[in-house]
Parts: sequence; C-alpha cells; structure tokens
Amino acid sequence: MKTLTTALNQKQENGFHELTHGIDVDVFLFKEEITVQKAWVTGLIEANIISVHDGNKINSELDSIEQEIENKTFNWVLEDEDIHMNIERVVTEKLGDLGKKMHLGRSRNDLVATSLKLYLANSCIYFITEINAIALVILDLSERDINIILPAYTHLQAAQPIRMSQIWNFHVLNFSSDFEKFYHCHQNLMSWMPLGSAAISGTHISIDLKAISKSLGFHNPPINSIHGVSDRDGVIETAQAISMLALHIGRFCEDIILMSSSVMKVAQLSPEWSSGSSIMPNKRNPDFFEVLRGKSKKLMALGNEVLFMNSGIASGYCSDFHEQKRVIVEAIVNLREILPIIKKAFGSVIIDKERSSELLSTGHILATDVANNMVTEGMTFRDAYRLVATRIVEANEKFIQVGTDTTSFETAVEKRNNFGGTSASRILESISTLKDRLLAPRSHPPFKLTGNSINFKA
Amino acid sequence: MKTLTTALNQKQENGFHELTHGIDVDVFLFKEEITVQKAWVTGLIEANIISVHDGNKINSELDSIEQEIENKTFNWVLEDEDIHMNIERVVTEKLGDLGKKMHLGRSRNDLVATSLKLYLANSCIYFITEINAIALVILDLSERDINIILPAYTHLQAAQPIRMSQIWNFHVLNFSSDFEKFYHCHQNLMSWMPLGSAAISGTHISIDLKAISKSLGFHNPPINSIHGVSDRDGVIETAQAISMLALHIGRFCEDIILMSSSVMKVAQLSPEWSSGSSIMPNKRNPDFFEVLRGKSKKLMALGNEVLFMNSGIASGYCSDFHEQKRVIVEAIVNLREILPIIKKAFGSVIIDKERSSELLSTGHILATDVANNMVTEGMTFRDAYRLVATRIVEANEKFIQVGTDTTSFETAVEKRNNFGGTSASRILESISTLKDRLLAPRSHPPFKLTGNSINFKA
Amino acid sequence: MKTLTTALNQKQENGFHELTHGIDVDVFLFKEEITVQKAWVTGLIEANIISVHDGNKINSELDSIEQEIENKTFNWVLEDEDIHMNIERVVTEKLGDLGKKMHLGRSRNDLVATSLKLYLANSCIYFITEINAIALVILDLSERDINIILPAYTHLQAAQPIRMSQIWNFHVLNFSSDFEKFYHCHQNLMSWMPLGSAAISGTHISIDLKAISKSLGFHNPPINSIHGVSDRDGVIETAQAISMLALHIGRFCEDIILMSSSVMKVAQLSPEWSSGSSIMPNKRNPDFFEVLRGKSKKLMALGNEVLFMNSGIASGYCSDFHEQKRVIVEAIVNLREILPIIKKAFGSVIIDKERSSELLSTGHILATDVANNMVTEGMTFRDAYRLVATRIVEANEKFIQVGTDTTSFETAVEKRNNFGGTSASRILESISTLKDRLLAPRSHPPFKLTGNSINFKA
Amino acid sequence: MKTLTTALNQKQENGFHELTHGIDVDVFLFKEEITVQKAWVTGLIEANIISVHDGNKINSELDSIEQEIENKTFNWVLEDEDIHMNIERVVTEKLGDLGKKMHLGRSRNDLVATSLKLYLANSCIYFITEINAIALVILDLSERDINIILPAYTHLQAAQPIRMSQIWNFHVLNFSSDFEKFYHCHQNLMSWMPLGSAAISGTHISIDLKAISKSLGFHNPPINSIHGVSDRDGVIETAQAISMLALHIGRFCEDIILMSSSVMKVAQLSPEWSSGSSIMPNKRNPDFFEVLRGKSKKLMALGNEVLFMNSGIASGYCSDFHEQKRVIVEAIVNLREILPIIKKAFGSVIIDKERSSELLSTGHILATDVANNMVTEGMTFRDAYRLVATRIVEANEKFIQVGTDTTSFETAVEKRNNFGGTSASRILESISTLKDRLLAPRSHPPFKLTGNSINFKA
Repeated sequence: MKTLTTALNQKQENGFHELTHGIDVDVFLFKEEITVQKAWVTGLIEANIISVHDGNKINSELDSIEQEIENKTFNWVLEDEDIHMNIERVVTEKLGDLGKKMHLGRSRNDLVATSLKLYLANSCIYFITEINAIALVILDLSERDINIILPAYTHLQAAQPIRMSQIWNFHVLNFSSDFEKFYHCHQNLMSWMPLGSAAISGTHISIDLKAISKSLGFHNPPINSIHGVSDRDGVIETAQAISMLALHIGRFCEDIILMSSSVMKVAQLSPEWSSGSSIMPNKRNPDFFEVLRGKSKKLMALGNEVLFMNSGIASGYCSDFHEQKRVIVEAIVNLREILPIIKKAFGSVIIDKERSSELLSTGHILATDVANNMVTEGMTFRDAYRLVATRIVEANEKFIQVGTDTTSFETAVEKRNNFGGTSASRILESISTLKDRLLAPRSHPPFKLTGNSINFKA
Repeated sequence: MKTLTTALNQKQENGFHELTHGIDVDVFLFKEEITVQKAWVTGLIEANIISVHDGNKINSELDSIEQEIENKTFNWVLEDEDIHMNIERVVTEKLGDLGKKMHLGRSRNDLVATSLKLYLANSCIYFITEINAIALVILDLSERDINIILPAYTHLQAAQPIRMSQIWNFHVLNFSSDFEKFYHCHQNLMSWMPLGSAAISGTHISIDLKAISKSLGFHNPPINSIHGVSDRDGVIETAQAISMLALHIGRFCEDIILMSSSVMKVAQLSPEWSSGSSIMPNKRNPDFFEVLRGKSKKLMALGNEVLFMNSGIASGYCSDFHEQKRVIVEAIVNLREILPIIKKAFGSVIIDKERSSELLSTGHILATDVANNMVTEGMTFRDAYRLVATRIVEANEKFIQVGTDTTSFETAVEKRNNFGGTSASRILESISTLKDRLLAPRSHPPFKLTGNSINFKA
Repeated sequence: MKTLTTALNQKQENGFHELTHGIDVDVFLFKEEITVQKAWVTGLIEANIISVHDGNKINSELDSIEQEIENKTFNWVLEDEDIHMNIERVVTEKLGDLGKKMHLGRSRNDLVATSLKLYLANSCIYFITEINAIALVILDLSERDINIILPAYTHLQAAQPIRMSQIWNFHVLNFSSDFEKFYHCHQNLMSWMPLGSAAISGTHISIDLKAISKSLGFHNPPINSIHGVSDRDGVIETAQAISMLALHIGRFCEDIILMSSSVMKVAQLSPEWSSGSSIMPNKRNPDFFEVLRGKSKKLMALGNEVLFMNSGIASGYCSDFHEQKRVIVEAIVNLREILPIIKKAFGSVIIDKERSSELLSTGHILATDVANNMVTEGMTFRDAYRLVATRIVEANEKFIQVGTDTTSFETAVEKRNNFGGTSASRILESISTLKDRLLAPRSHPPFKLTGNSINFKA
Repeated sequence: MKTLTTALNQKQENGFHELTHGIDVDVFLFKEEITVQKAWVTGLIEANIISVHDGNKINSELDSIEQEIENKTFNWVLEDEDIHMNIERVVTEKLGDLGKKMHLGRSRNDLVATSLKLYLANSCIYFITEINAIALVILDLSERDINIILPAYTHLQAAQPIRMSQIWNFHVLNFSSDFEKFYHCHQNLMSWMPLGSAAISGTHISIDLKAISKSLGFHNPPINSIHGVSDRDGVIETAQAISMLALHIGRFCEDIILMSSSVMKVAQLSPEWSSGSSIMPNKRNPDFFEVLRGKSKKLMALGNEVLFMNSGIASGYCSDFHEQKRVIVEAIVNLREILPIIKKAFGSVIIDKERSSELLSTGHILATDVANNMVTEGMTFRDAYRLVATRIVEANEKFIQVGTDTTSFETAVEKRNNFGGTSASRILESISTLKDRLLAPRSHPPFKLTGNSINFKA
C-alpha cells in the first residue's frame, strides 16, 4: 500500500523500491513497532475516538502480525517500503476501513522516531547487561592472577613490576565506564516521546499523550513536534557509546595479542580460541583477537558515520534518516552476535607465571625502587636517579639486574600501597569497589518494555 | 632540563625537540598544572616528607611562575619539552636541590593526566555556561516570533503551517541537550584522580591521596594506577560532546542559510552579520553562517580523530597521548573564540512576517486539515486523503489554495493543541519548561577550581 | 578442514568460527579465487612439480566448484573459516592426497591478497563502465536543456543567469573525474602480484611467477614478499575513490532536492521516482534522492573506516585484514545495487522552463551586467558596482528588476563567451569535449579477466 | 576594503571578521596569489583592456607587496577578510582608480580557486621530492642490513627467517607508492584552470584564457565556470593522499616501536632520537616515534575531515570552502615541518645483529622448511605439516629448535629465491628496481612555477 499510489499515481519505476525500502532493517525492531502501534490504538480508545470493540479488533490483529513476523510467515511487500505501511496494509486487508483508522492523528514520521527510540533504549539495556557480564569475567581473571608479578610497560619498555591484576582491572574500569554511558544514553532516549508530533506540527486530536508516553516508558510527552520527528541525537549518542565500547574491546585485544606474541609469550591462548597457520606448523595465532580488533575498528568508525549523516540537514524531516537507522541497527545486530562470544573468549586467557618471572629479569625494573631507597636515605631524587642510571650501565656489563641484591619484585609491588597501587591489599580493595559497582542495582536495569526485539534473529 | 640528558645522554638531534615538544599546547593549561603541582607539594608537607618551610618556598615559587606565564615573561626552553619540565627547571634554578623534591613520589605520567583532566573539566563548565547563554538567546527569538506563522517543510516540501517559535525551540532543545552532555563529561572526568599513580604502578610514598583529590575537586583518589596514567576516555568523551555541539551549530546555520536564501527569503540577515559580493552588487551573502558551518564540520570530525588516536595502543603509557592532547586543546581554544561570537550573531536574525505570509500561499499546506475535517465528519482518513489529493489537482488549475475557503492558517496551528504542538499556549508551555531547565542550578555550576586557564589567550 | 585442528588440536569453542569466519564475504569473490587457484596449479604443472594429468584433475575439480558456488549448491562448512580452506577441503575429499598438492609453495596469506586485488581491479573496471554511463545520461540532460536559462546561486543567493546545461555539465565533470580515479586504482592494484609471497618470506619453489602474473593480468611478479602479503593500500585507495564518487552522487542529489523544493520548484520529479506523504495529501517528496544522499554519506565514510583498520599494524600479516576485506566488499556489493538504479533515476529529472523564467525575475541578477556595461563606458568597476548597488535599492521600491530595460537574460548568458562560459557555443564545446572523453577507449577498458564475480548475487 | 561596506553598509559587528577572516591561512599561499594576480593583469594588457603602462604599474606594485609579505612588513587589515581584498586595497591606496581595474572580468571566487590549486600543486611537488628522499634513506638501511637475518612475524608470532632488508624494502615500497599518488594529484589539480570562471557564470571579457592557463602551468583553460569556482576535489584528493602517507609513516613508527621494545630489543634507538623517563632511570623511550605516530593518526583523519566539509553543499559557491582551505593548508604546513625531520630520524635506527640471532632461536621458525624438505622427499604437504607439528611438541620438551640440525637460517632465506623472496640476490634485485624508480625523472619533477610559497614560514 504505497501511500499515494493507488489514488493518483503511476507505479514507481523498477529500482525505486529496491533502493528506498527499509524492510530488511525494520524487521529488527518489529516488537517495538507493534508496541507503539498498540499504545496509540489504546490511546484512541481511551479518547473515545474509536470504540473499545474496534480498538480491540485492531490490537488483536497487531498481535497476530507480531506473531507472524516472529515466525517468519508475515507477507512482506517491498512496494510498501517499510514496516509501518506493511502493517497498515495487512490490518486493512483484514479489517477493511477500520484498519485505516489506526493512523488517525499520527504520521509515519513520529511513528518511525518512536519505534527507533524504543529499540535503541532496549539495546542500551542489553548492552549494560552484557558489558557488565564481560567486566565480571575479567574481574574473575583479576582475582585469579593476583599473585602473578610481571613488568608493566610504558612506551613498550619494561618499567616497573606490577601484579597482573592491575592490568585486568584497567580493562574492567574501561568496560564499567561503558555501561555508565549506555545508562545515560537510555535516559536521554526516553526523555521525550516523539509520538504525537505527527508529520511535523503535532497531532490535532485530543488524545492523552502523557498516558501513552508513560505506558511506553518515556519520561515525558512531546515538547516540540519538530524535535519529535527530526531529532536523531539518540542515534548518534548510542553510536558514540558503541565506538567507545569498541575502543575498549580493541585495547583488550591489543594487550592479549602483544602478551601472547612470540617475544612476550606471557599470555597463553587456549586452543579453543586460537588457530594454526595453513603453511607454518610452528604457529598458534591470536586470530580471534585480531579479527575482533578489526571488527572493533569498524565499530569505532560508527560515531563518525552516523554523525555526518545528520549534517547538511535543515530542521524538518527527510528520508536520509532511514539510512542512518540502517547503519545503527546493523551495528547493534552485529554487536548482539559479538558480545556473548567475547564474554567466553576473554575468560579463557591464561597467564604463564613462569614466563612472568623470566620477563622480570630484564630491563632493570627495580631501578626506580633503588633510587627511591637512596632518597629515603637522604639523597635528592634527581641525584639518586643519576646514580642509578650509572649503575645500570655497569650492571649491563656484568649481566646482572640492578636492585635484585637489595630488594625484591614482591617488595616493590607491596611498597606501592597507596590508593590504586599494586600491593595486594590495594588491588583487593579495587576489585571489591569494582564488583560493588558492577553488581549495583543501576547496573542491572530491568527490561521495562513489552516490546523488545533485541534477541530477534532475522 | 631534559630528563636524562645532562647525566648520561648526548644532546638530541636538531629536529627532535621541534617535533616532540608540546609547550605550545601546554601553555593553555598552565593554571591547572600549577594547581596540581601545588596540591602535591601541600600533600608532601602534610605527610611530613618535606618541611612546611621548604614546601612554602616551592609553592611560592610556583605562584611566581604562574604569574610569569600569565604575563608572558616566563622563560620557556624548548629542550625541556613540556610545561612540567620547564617548571621543574625554573624551580630548581631558584631553589637548588629543594626544587628537585617537588617531584617526589610522582611522575610526569600522572601529572600530565591530572592537569589534562582538570583542564577538560574546566572546559566542560565553560561550555555549559556558554551553551546555556546561546540557548537563552534563541529562546528570546522564540518569544519574539510566536505570532509569525509560516510553512514547516519536510523533505524541503511545504508541509503544514507552524509558528516560527517551533523552529527556534527545536534548536533550543538541541543546545540544551549539549549542556547535559558536558555535565556528564565533567562528572566522569572528575571521578578518579590520576595523581598518585606515578609512572605506572602507583606512588610508593605515604601521602594523603584522598585529601589531595578532594582539594582538587576529584570525587575519588586513584583506583588503578595503569588506568590513572593511560585512561584518555575523558578526552574522547569531551571530543564526542564537542562533535555533537558542532552538529547543532551546523544545523542552526543550515536553517538560517536556507531561510535567508533568495528563494525563501524569510530570514533577514542584519548587515552587521553578513556581507556582499566582490563582483555582484545585488548580493547579500550569509557567509558568516557558511564559515561557521564549515568550522562546525571540522569540529564534527573531532570525535573520530581523537578516538582513533587511542586505538592500537596497549595498556600502559605512550607519547601518542601528547598529540591527542594537542588536538583536543586546539579544538577547545578554537571554540573559546567562536562561542561568544555566535551568541551575538544568532540573536541578530530577523524573521520577515510579510514574507512568511507569502510562503503560506503555495503548496496547499492546509490539505491535511481539510482531510482531518472530513474525517471528523465521518469519512475514513484514507478516503479523505484521496479526495483532498484530487481537489489539489483541481485547485492548481484554478490557481487557488485548498482549504483557504473553509479554514485558516491560524486555526490550523491552534488546532495542534496537544503536547509539543503549534498552538500558542503549547509553545508558551514549552518555552517555560525550557527556560526552567536552562536556569536550573545544575545549568550553572559554579567554577570550583582555583586553577582555570580557560580564559587565557596565548 | 580447519588448519591444525584434526592433527593436534581440540575443536575450537562455539562462537570462535561464528566470529572469525569470512565465508559470507568470500563468496562474492569466488571467481577471482578459482582463477588464482587454477593459475597456480597451471604454474605447478609447467614447473614439472605436478604432472599434467594431476594438474588437470585439480583444475577440472576447481571448475566444478566454481559451478557449484554459482548454482548455490556448494557445501560451505563454517569451520573451514574461508573460501580457501573450503575449496581445499572439497578438492581433497574428491581427489585425496592430490588435493593437498595444490597448496604447494604458497600460503593463504598470498592467496587472499591476490584474489582480493583481482576482485578490486574487476570492481574498478565495473565502476569505470557504470560511472561513464551515468555521466552520459547527465550529458543527455545537458543537451536537452541548453535553452533553459535560470539563475545560478552562490551562497544560495541568486547571482547571475546561466543555462541549465552549465549545472548538468558540472556534475558530468565530477563523475568523469571519478572514472579517471578508478583507472589509476586499477593500475596500482595490478602493478605487483602478491602470489608467490607465500606466508611472509616468499615461495621456496621454482615456479614461473612472471608467467603466472601475466596470465592473471598483473604487470609484474612480486617485488617483496612482506609487501605481497601485508600491503592493503589498494583497498584503501579503492575506498577513497568510492568515498569521492559518493560525494559526487550526494552533491547531485543535493541539487535535485533543492531544485525540486517547494520554494524553488524548478526541477520536476517524475512520479516514478518520487512518492507522497502518508498524512499530507499535498506532498510529493524527493525521498529517492534523500535516501540516496543518506547512502552516499555512508559511503563517504568508507575511506576513513578502511584506512584506520590498517593503523596500529606492524609489518607482517594479521587477521585484522579479513575484516577490512569485509568492509570494502560490502560497500562494492552495495554500489553494484545502486549504480544501475541511479543511472535510470538521474535521467528522469525534468526542468520546468516556465518556472525558470519566474526565478529569473527576482534578485536583480543582471546587476553585474549593468555594472559591466558602465565599465565599458569608462567607469571604474568599483564605482559602477556602487552605483548599481544604489539603483537596486531604488528598483526594490518600485518592484522592478535592475537591468531588464537595457539588456536581457539571453544577452547576459551569451556575453559569457569565453572558455567555460555560459554562451550556447561554449557549452556545446564543453559537451563535445566531455563526450569525447567519456567515449575514449580508456573510458571503456575491456574486461580482461576470466574470473570476475562482480555480477554475482549471493 | 570590505566589499560593500563603504558604499551602502553599516560596519559589521565585532566578532564577524574575527570568525570569518582567513588571513592567517592565506598568508601561506601569498606567492601563488601574486602570481595569479599578475598573470591576469598581463592578460588584460595583452587583450588591450588596460594599457601596457598601467598594467606594468600594477604588476610592479604586486611585486612590492610580495616582498612586503615575505619581509613581514605588509599591512594586513582584518576587516579586508582575506589576502585578495588586502592586496586590492593596498594597490588602490597606491594607484587609485587604476588599482580597481585589476579586478576586471574576474571575481574572488575564481581567484581563490586558482591560487589554492597552484598552492596544492606546488605542495604535491614538494611532497614528491621529500618522500623520495625519505624512501632513499630507508633504501640505504636496506643495503646496510642485508646480512642481518631475523624472524619475520605474522600475527606477532615468529614465522620464518628473513633478511632485515625485506622489512626496510616494504616501507620503501609504501613511500614510493605515495609519490606516485602525489604525482596524479598534481596532474588532476592542473588539468583545468579556474581563473576566468568569474563569480559563477564565466568572464564576460575577451581575454586569452588559454595563454593565461599556459603561463600558470595549467593544462587547459576553464571548461565549466561552475566547476571552476566550486570544484574542491583537488583538496580532497590531496588530503586523501596525505592520509595514506600518514598511514605509511605510522606503520614505520609501529615497526620501530615494536622492534625497540624491551622484549624484542632488536632495533636500537640512537640517544639523539630517543629520551629517558623522568622517574625511571632504566628507561629509553621511543617517544619520538610515538609522537610521530600520534601526529600521523591526526593526519590520517584529514581525508575524512576535508571530504565531509563538501557534503551537503549544492553546486555553486559557498564560504564553507574557506574553512576547508584552512584545514588542508594547516596540514601541509605541519607536514612541511615534519618531513625534513623524519628523514633524519629514520636513517638513525640501528639493527642489533647479535640480538637478531637470539630472536631466531625461539619459535621453531625453520618448521616450514623442514616440512618442505619432507615434501621434496615425497610426502604430501599436509602430512608433512602434521608430522612437523608433532615434532615441535617433542622439541619443546627438549628445549631445542626444530630444523637446526638439518638446515640453517641462512639456507632458509636463500631458498626463497623467487621474485620478491629473501635470498640476497632477489633483495638486491628489488633494491635496484626501487632505486631506479626513485631516481627516475618523473620522481623529480622540476618546480615549474614562479609562485611557490611552500618554504614560507609565517
């Protein structure tokens, strides 16, 4: 049922619908769409614009359609362009003129915006849950590896001894900041309901927009009809949050790839999460983490992609938005496949304690401690620094490590016993803080909405 | 005083410092730097690591340096690479060995991170204030133009009549969401203090990090030393918020450029904010808004630029971060020049009421209302839609506008009287809500920090 | 047949192959893959490493596989990860140990790189052909509309009269520069053959790499094995060329959307390539051109996306490249759907001559000519400019257009009779130059390769 | 001399010129600007539009201005907005009405485009020269290190032995493809002269555009006046080429940072091109290469930045272009500082032969050769592969390396004796090919233009 076609229009050319339709994308948010459609019908009933009997017939038909889409038996028609017109066609086929009434007082413009916001909000909740689980998996590694001491690197140069947990906790912090971000995204997405903005200037009917917004989980009814139909900041914010999450995934991979490299070899990849070379029998490749790093770079580009799709657009509504929806939905569907897998993969990494010890024995990483001890004995830091630098030159000639005679790596990590330091107690303190944060109620928001397509597979 | 140089190193090659130094960037955050340095010295005093007398001498020297930088009399030395080493050199020149003590228990790595976070946090507060002011300027236009009715456009096609205020309020909403974003940025930036993370594994001295973090306005002391020195998410988040702000500036320009175009001509640019052509005496160009749109696109690219600067970086610290700092600081300095100007320019736009009326008389923008009225009289919407579409064809032949005989533009805008609609009362309601939000205390956070370089001009 | 699995490895975890496999992408370049595989087998035969009889058996099996993939009857196995191992498995299933010989002296690393280069090179030839056709379609519009005079706009302000063909020719120039770019891309892609680089250090067997490279259309055999397996510049260059092409598509859409807007209304969209509103019976929307503009922005982001996927990668080979391949292949497949459609759509735009005349009668666009005439009579240009500017103020009060009494729009366009100007003869000259360029042999490179998957639909 | 101001306009507001002016950017292309201005005046003389006497007076004044800008004594006036109006003002101040004649028949729109194209073309020639020099420096390293054998890494896993020169040559190839790219950029930039396009519709005067284009080095006079003033593809192409060059610089840095890392330690950074830590006396950091990697990422983002600045722009001219000019010019000026430095720095890297040998003794990198030998003796590759994989497990238990008993690293690299392989003769062959390419005439295009600001420092 292409809008004007039957009445006044010729049929569009071959190719028109192939290029403009968005059915392949819309299918991923069908539950949100049905939920919104039903909420509007319910509003029409309560405003006495359609009868209870009629409204229930429509809503029951909408339920059937939801079921058909889920079961993949729904009759999608390309010429109907999107999910909205497909649904209206089917309802009208079944209910005749009654079907046409569900459109009363609203437009596709506000419907599209509302379903999309709900879908993104549901995605945010999904991300929060999944990222939390990933962070908890890494936190387990942190608890496991607290007794493994190895060099920390700055500029890829061995710097000072740390506990392995210090590295894991860094990544936990990264991921835990992501779920905060998705939480804010969710709040922003749900702050104003677009439905009721109609095409551009607001609905002309007396319908209880406050009640509808409440039933859909929005914090407020519309505040500005132009904003209602043309605001896509929520898409951009979600995309920016995804780009940041992708950075964190990529940095985790970076660490694993480096730590499992031939020269560092301190991380062991399990055979279940790595593979061999087709030509070199001596290889075990971190290809899982490389492919994931590649995927993360693609997702890092998402923020830019989505942002520029809104530039050069005056206020009002335009169909460029359809393609922006395509880009964000594809990214979310992609992440929906990735996140459950990486949760398992991240937990599989083993740290080789023996190799950690070997790595400690190059690079004079107790040098700072030796200098610090001199300072305690009264020297200025700068002078101590210079003296130790000279001793390193001598030690190199004797193939020994500065400091191993007077102190130990264990002593060194325990000495960093202030907030955020490498002593066992400080690390346990951080683990506990992080766990509290990850297990806090806000980290596990309930799924509020009946319509939620996030687990749908097309 | 290049770190190792005097003791064991040859001088670096010509070109080394020219490429690696960051003095031209660091100067923009000198007050934050001095504040952090002084807070650390105060911490050393309170931990009895240096005497009150010594500590005061250092802090007083730091005050002098702050003054010298402000007065542009400070002796910057390129070979010292950054502000941190330049300050240490001067203090040591003045106070001898005492000067070297200020470095005790910390590193450049945590110092750099802390000063940068403070600077970004201060910038966020600046942005909040300035964006608020811009939003209030546009809100004034909204109050001024509430009686101007003109067509709203979707797909650049005349759609329905609206009040001009509806467009202005759309932009106010955009900008008001920006200040929310900078508020969250500020909170995230201040959540953990990096200072005390030292080079990578945490400080070895007993100093009250909680007290220092409180004195600097941070919510918490460090939680993880690797995170302390290598987390740059705050830079990225600020950049992403700036990119979104830039989108909003660009979309405002887009509206003005279009509305002031020869064909639309409904916005009048004041001669103070537009200019003529060098060859065509008939022109008045919106070049201010075009240049601004160009600048906004550059800023829109910032998020992407800054994000990718962190990719491919394992945990730890590396000097790539210095260039990332350069990019964000340059953008902020640039915005510092732009924002006060656009506040004035945006307020200068005049809407031509006569031309608005002319624009109403094409495009049959009462068509929806005519259809709606038919529905009220019992027709289905789809049938009414088809009937009106037919009438438009007839009206075109007679050069008249559908609907002008039975209703009016005023009636049409008043009929959209639900939340977010175009009726005068609804628009006044929105203006009031927006004003409350813009004037709320959270929208005007006090400048908390003594060190704040944001108004400094290099 | 996952490489090491059967011999020494445990099976990988669920999720491993789901995330790492690239079969869905590889299928789009199956013909190039088969071509390369066969060329290698032929090389092995000619080097007497395998017998003619054995080689022919393998090649004939490869032909069958090509047919099966084309017919969608090929037995893809996810655990085989990519097209390369899937093919090897099937050949080995059929031919036993013989199948394993096809791998001799090469690796997946050089195979992947070679098939991808061929696929991209074939895509370039496809793009050249298709872009040429689009440019010729627009050139037809240019010939059609040479007698339509309308205002040219600078800064969206009416500036001077031009012929419509001048705008069309601008777009022809844009597209014709694109095909030049794809031509260079093609040359670069084919300059060195990767095959023979093996995993990273080059093949150890004596096989005639020069002959193989010639048979595959490459200009040269490998020059450096590391470059052979890890160079992905061709992907980036193709992506950058696509981004530029997308910009040109977008700018064409921009012109059509603006020219067909309610206020300008000089371009008429045929009903076959536009649609109506679901709520407003008065609308005809350029949604085709908006959706296309949206798609073009996504493609504009491609260069950035693909470029950053190579950053942070040391020399050598890594699996990040697989995801980079995914991104470029998806973009090309997408363009393969778009380009044939836009060729039809672009040709459908009608320019309304009557409306052109109306547009000429505002904005005083003869002002420059009036000034020029004064100069001819001896005044300095600056003085003339000022005088005319004054006259415009007067004319506005009288509701007349400056200059229409003394000259005409036709005269004005004919007066621009120098190279690139708006006179009819100059425009015909440009059309002729452009047509020659578009019809030149280089613009129509023959499809050189037997393997070419570009028309395959998965 | 702001265009309309003195005659009919009020003065613009404070802030207007501060935001819109481009003098700080224009100064970098003053020689190109003067050259273009003089070429136009000469054209006016030859067309008998102004007298030889008058023309010479103007040109001589233009020469003085060029000198003043170079000497930094030129009186820049912010209100004049750009270099074009500043020059016109000064000429008019000196020569009165005569000064105004230099503007005859052209506009700022075509002047801006022409000067910019010349500047970019000059930059391309500069880049070609400088990149060539960098490539030759790396080629020297390649000749120096041909006898150093070390492991090649794929997926950061030791793979097979190679000669160090193989890695250097990879980078030479990268850089040599860059200069090809800048060569094409140059050709495209110079293909059509914009001058003569006037504001938008072409010049109305009879002036020999062919002769002027020839004198400025353009291949052709204008072909389309709209294209002349609004085409910015050359900016984008140059930016894309810079982004690719930056990728190559970054990948070189990546290799050096990794090879000089504590764990690999095979590259030694000279003290002149590295530095120490402020707190850890044991460190020598590759900060030069990290800062450079950071800068390269910024430049990698350039293509995206510049490309999107042209999106959303209809045909015609707009002031967004001014900001696009700013972005590209700043990048070029930045590279002008960087390239001469990196040429010196790249040449300073030393490869440690002893450490190379140590690295060879882990990872069983002769495994492929052992398998290959089994194949030569009749086994299928796949079976050999499996057998060797089993032997590696055994060898690991005995702490020995597979293959060192039956073959050698030297033998292994010499065995790769086909095109692009690691044998000494093949590497020398590649070096020779690359040198020929780098020394070819096309690689050293003469500076054609008298106006060339590329060495100017503001």
